[in-house]
Amino acid sequence: MASKFYAIVIGAGTGTGSAAARRFSPAYPVVLMARSPASYQDAVDGINASGGRAVGVSADAADPASLQAAFARIRDELLPGHRLAAAVYNVGANFKRAPFLEAKVEDFDSSVAGNARGFFLFAQQTIPLLLESVDASPPHPPTLIITGATASMRGAANCSGFAAGMTARRAIGQSLAREFGPKGVHVAHTVIDGVIDIPKTKAYNVNGGVEDGKLDPDAIAESYWHLHTQPRSAFTQELDLRPYVEKF
Amino acid sequence: MASKFYAIVIGAGTGTGSAAARRFSPAYPVVLMARSPASYQDAVDGINASGGRAVGVSADAADPASLQAAFARIRDELLPGHRLAAAVYNVGANFKRAPFLEAKVEDFDSSVAGNARGFFLFAQQTIPLLLESVDASPPHPPTLIITGATASMRGAANCSGFAAGMTARRAIGQSLAREFGPKGVHVAHTVIDGVIDIPKTKAYNVNGGVEDGKLDPDAIAESYWHLHTQPRSAFTQELDLRPYVEKF
Amino acid sequence: MASKFYAIVIGAGTGTGSAAARRFSPAYPVVLMARSPASYQDAVDGINASGGRAVGVSADAADPASLQAAFARIRDELLPGHRLAAAVYNVGANFKRAPFLEAKVEDFDSSVAGNARGFFLFAQQTIPLLLESVDASPPHPPTLIITGATASMRGAANCSGFAAGMTARRAIGQSLAREFGPKGVHVAHTVIDGVIDIPKTKAYNVNGGVEDGKLDPDAIAESYWHLHTQPRSAFTQELDLRPYVEKF
Amino acid sequence: MASKFYAIVIGAGTGTGSAAARRFSPAYPVVLMARSPASYQDAVDGINASGGRAVGVSADAADPASLQAAFARIRDELLPGHRLAAAVYNVGANFKRAPFLEAKVEDFDSSVAGNARGFFLFAQQTIPLLLESVDASPPHPPTLIITGATASMRGAANCSGFAAGMTARRAIGQSLAREFGPKGVHVAHTVIDGVIDIPKTKAYNVNGGVEDGKLDPDAIAESYWHLHTQPRSAFTQELDLRPYVEKF
Repeated sequence: MASKFYAIVIGAGTGTGSAAARRFSPAYPVVLMARSPASYQDAVDGINASGGRAVGVSADAADPASLQAAFARIRDELLPGHRLAAAVYNVGANFKRAPFLEAKVEDFDSSVAGNARGFFLFAQQTIPLLLESVDASPPHPPTLIITGATASMRGAANCSGFAAGMTARRAIGQSLAREFGPKGVHVAHTVIDGVIDIPKTKAYNVNGGVEDGKLDPDAIAESYWHLHTQPRSAFTQELDLRPYVEKF
Repeated sequence: MASKFYAIVIGAGTGTGSAAARRFSPAYPVVLMARSPASYQDAVDGINASGGRAVGVSADAADPASLQAAFARIRDELLPGHRLAAAVYNVGANFKRAPFLEAKVEDFDSSVAGNARGFFLFAQQTIPLLLESVDASPPHPPTLIITGATASMRGAANCSGFAAGMTARRAIGQSLAREFGPKGVHVAHTVIDGVIDIPKTKAYNVNGGVEDGKLDPDAIAESYWHLHTQPRSAFTQELDLRPYVEKF
Repeated sequence: MASKFYAIVIGAGTGTGSAAARRFSPAYPVVLMARSPASYQDAVDGINASGGRAVGVSADAADPASLQAAFARIRDELLPGHRLAAAVYNVGANFKRAPFLEAKVEDFDSSVAGNARGFFLFAQQTIPLLLESVDASPPHPPTLIITGATASMRGAANCSGFAAGMTARRAIGQSLAREFGPKGVHVAHTVIDGVIDIPKTKAYNVNGGVEDGKLDPDAIAESYWHLHTQPRSAFTQELDLRPYVEKF
Repeated sequence: MASKFYAIVIGAGTGTGSAAARRFSPAYPVVLMARSPASYQDAVDGINASGGRAVGVSADAADPASLQAAFARIRDELLPGHRLAAAVYNVGANFKRAPFLEAKVEDFDSSVAGNARGFFLFAQQTIPLLLESVDASPPHPPTLIITGATASMRGAANCSGFAAGMTARRAIGQSLAREFGPKGVHVAHTVIDGVIDIPKTKAYNVNGGVEDGKLDPDAIAESYWHLHTQPRSAFTQELDLRPYVEKF
């Protein structure tokens, strides 16, 4: 009998996370993970209402025990007998701009916790599962996708804490790609360079307010799906995504 | 009446070029361009035999008059009334390794001519056509895709001429992306980091000879198609492609 | 009366830290800081014996209270009336290689604490002091120098925790350079790409054991001094340093 | 008897080139090379008047015969018995901004000729001379320094030809560093990120016209001298130089 597979998205609130879950849902049951149901419940309901299958699980990426319990629940209770096809790390923690001398070390800590430590822990949970899937005839190579940002590439003024967490996250991803690529797991990082078009940013006047001046989460999700479907002879480790009018 | 669109691939011999033409052919008639029919004829015939529509045109990318004549022929004779939806620059010129003190300046010249000057000229022909397509309700944003290589990113020992041409080509692409992205033309560069699996490389023992240790041209072409279909709210400027076992 | 200036090096044990202190000591009294006197005492004694002036201070960069107490002691007790001319962050924490699935999150934590959080805190102590020096006729623009490594640039296999801390540190440095450069403080990052020639590495067989195959700490220190003496019309933000035989 | 050494600067007009020649002149006789005496004569006279020794030679970097003749003249006539200690490639060709569709391929050609082909040819002349100096007890490792620019790193809008030439030049430099570093020749590239303060730019209002908002050529030259004096255990391959107020 063929294996059954699932996908998981952590940081699965509005925006990129829920769009990714929706995009992967025709192919796999999807787990939406976030700190509280308030973040994922609407997206879970939406997917189930459209004929997909979704479950929500609460967990804090930066807390090892919380994460471990969540994965045990998936394995034992929510999707027993399923293997992991794709995992998306989409947690976005503590994006703040502040003059450096007014910044608090707690902001640094919270950026690193959510943006990097959480990814380290999430990868320690998911990489073993993805490795197990490599030889189980998955439809596509098992994939770990990381959402990054402009701040993953360099530190801007007034933004050291966020950049610290995001560059660290990218570096972990590069380490994983180099270690687990040759074992058949596809690790890909995306650089989202612009404002994402979500309810919270509706009022932001970016790029002169032109149409499509913000990133459509569904477009991001489409590229995530493309990354997942790449065969192992041609893996992408990194791609950028930005609105056509974005300066770079 | 809806506009009719076509795609063009230059450097359309075996490998990435013909695979890209094949991949785009269900959506558009495709023009395969290369210096001589020996390079493109089999691919043209193959596409036409599979129900697609392909035409071959001989031209030398590094020769302005040759290129201009070829585009005039497409417009007036081969595909009158069609607009350009996508263009792929896949010319690969003069990849040679040699100790620098044995390298000839003619190798430098020929790398720059085919890898960079040819792209400059090809872009001067295609960008105006792509701009005209922006407002003609194309199925996807008009796209210019550039095939790059590891040598597009940095100069390796014994490889200065090739790296010179390929880094120059990437830089032109970045300039074009920044100038024409905001006008609706998607300019994307790919970094092919590995050996492509084509007849010429069959005997190359790379990555220990493991299966899928070379890049499948059809996999590359699939990522080119994905780039083409990205909506303007989320354009990728650059992505890398490498076999899962490739060191990087 | 002309202002009196001093320099400070944290992570001032053997190697780069003590070499930097020595190099700056003809120009300024130097503070050598490390977690315990065992790390800095010999270097302090050596500088004092050669006619320079050095003091040692114990502090833990990653502990805000410890760091704050150390800077208060410098101001009130060790070098009252002095202004800060140059600060070097040379803490190197927890360089370990381990397969990712055997790595402990404690190693990630300890890398981030020493390599990034400590730098964040050290910068919050030193930047205000360096800003105060800008208008006090310092001999050279006030300078903050950060020791980096290959792992500051990218994550290698089996090295995610260290790379996380070091890329984060670099990103903080970039943020500071962009925020405080225009205010007259020179923030520079160095990429030490190779093994440093110190007692601990004597037995390492690197680069085939050739002479000068490891980095001489005094050579690194000379480049640090050069960075410090750059006038504000031509600041270097980043330079790499590697043995001539190092592959890169 | 100890060997006698000299330094050479090509592109030795006003600005960085003549400043580099001046900075190297206390240590070595210097050759200033440019297409015509109008470019170098004042600088040559100035160095000779200040007690240094300078000679001017006319040559076109992009013309192999011209360059070869110039080096033969240095060897046979101007500085017989001398060995090459340091060479600086400072040719800056054809910096123009123009909308891409108005750019001429001749501008591309001329940028590549002066910025990249000329460097290729200059390196083919100087690398053999620098290699010969490695074992001749030079005061510092034989050095080849390349002046780069912001456009060496990426292509900006309206600037494809210049970026093509400059990225190609940087790539050649990287190739040479990797091939000849292990043989004892130091190849270093600098990224001059800002406007240089020379007569031609006096009227440019950059960075709000603040003092030191342009790069002082003597400050650039000081960093070139530092690069030259680095011992082989710690070579810098690349450093950036920019005014403290420059955005980056």
